[in-house]
Amino acid sequence: MPHSAPHNEPALNLCTMSKPRIVLASTSPSRLSILRGAGIEPITAAPEVDEDALIASLADASPAHVVEELASAKAHAVAADFPDDIVIGGDSMLLLDGELQGKPHTVERTVARWQAQRGRTAELITGHCVVTPKGEHREAAITALDFAQASDADIEAYALTGEPLECAGAFTLEAMGGWFIDGISGDPSSVIGLSLPVVRRALYTYGYSVSQFWNR
Amino acid sequence: MPHSAPHNEPALNLCTMSKPRIVLASTSPSRLSILRGAGIEPITAAPEVDEDALIASLADASPAHVVEELASAKAHAVAADFPDDIVIGGDSMLLLDGELQGKPHTVERTVARWQAQRGRTAELITGHCVVTPKGEHREAAITALDFAQASDADIEAYALTGEPLECAGAFTLEAMGGWFIDGISGDPSSVIGLSLPVVRRALYTYGYSVSQFWNR
Repeated sequence: MPHSAPHNEPALNLCTMSKPRIVLASTSPSRLSILRGAGIEPITAAPEVDEDALIASLADASPAHVVEELASAKAHAVAADFPDDIVIGGDSMLLLDGELQGKPHTVERTVARWQAQRGRTAELITGHCVVTPKGEHREAAITALDFAQASDADIEAYALTGEPLECAGAFTLEAMGGWFIDGISGDPSSVIGLSLPVVRRALYTYGYSVSQFWNR
Repeated sequence: MPHSAPHNEPALNLCTMSKPRIVLASTSPSRLSILRGAGIEPITAAPEVDEDALIASLADASPAHVVEELASAKAHAVAADFPDDIVIGGDSMLLLDGELQGKPHTVERTVARWQAQRGRTAELITGHCVVTPKGEHREAAITALDFAQASDADIEAYALTGEPLECAGAFTLEAMGGWFIDGISGDPSSVIGLSLPVVRRALYTYGYSVSQFWNR
């Protein structure tokens, strides 16, 4: 009976042989939209991380190191629940003249921010940590970004849309903010919040292909 | 009666005072998606242009000049029908080692193209012509693009999705192709087919804002 199923194999094997899935350790709509647009509907899980305490413990670290540590903390906060899967954590910072730029929250602060940053170049640093059953990959992507000479009328109208209020640096590259970014030097998906090429390199490092996870 | 309406004003004035609209002289879904994503639902019009004849007449011109001429021909083929509006024409070329890259059309040619181009840098040249009632703006955007070291398995899977078959250079930046572009130097929307910052500069040149056209 060469094709019969084995009777005595332990049930556990079915589990060990299951295909790994992609788990996004984030509730960010931007990060989710990047994966979806690139063919992957991930499992999402909210990581419980005390970001402020972690940042405080890294007072002398470089920004790239800080975002890698935050990405790692997020991925590992979730990874224990998904030991057979691939868990992706990410975190971003925007620096202007070396100074960290947060979210403006209000229309007034968005307008003031843009009046100060138009015509200047910022640095977006996105940390990644990809935890796989075979090992983990950490990488920070650094992308330069040129803010355009947006007019006062456009700055005000852009702020009033509400789109940039909850974005670090008061902009979005993928939507209306695209009018006001003259160019970037780096990977566009890293600016939106998760670098597809970085995730690809992580998967390749551990013998996975990207396309095996395409499920949309 | 300082606030009464004038009675003897010619009806034509109503027309002159009408707000200009954005007209996209293209049937490209990519160009349309860029404008939509950035807040503008344009009127679209298919330009009738003999592109082959125009290219043949420009045998010794630079690629940037050729794409500008093609963009201009498309915009002007439509502009006569929309004299009070702003008509946008665009055209793109991808060069690898100075050689023009067309659409691969088949899975086999897509695979062969990627096996040749992975790890290399290409130059994407997007020509723009924006015709307004006050004058026109022509500009070519040149963006460098680094193809990643995609694996054979991923190249084959990507070709089999069909996504890159009708794309110059056999890639898309905005969808699954994003996995396989390590970075760009320039404006991401120019890679997709229409540069939002170039259109913004054209509008500013003639005294328009960008936000006055947001209608979504």
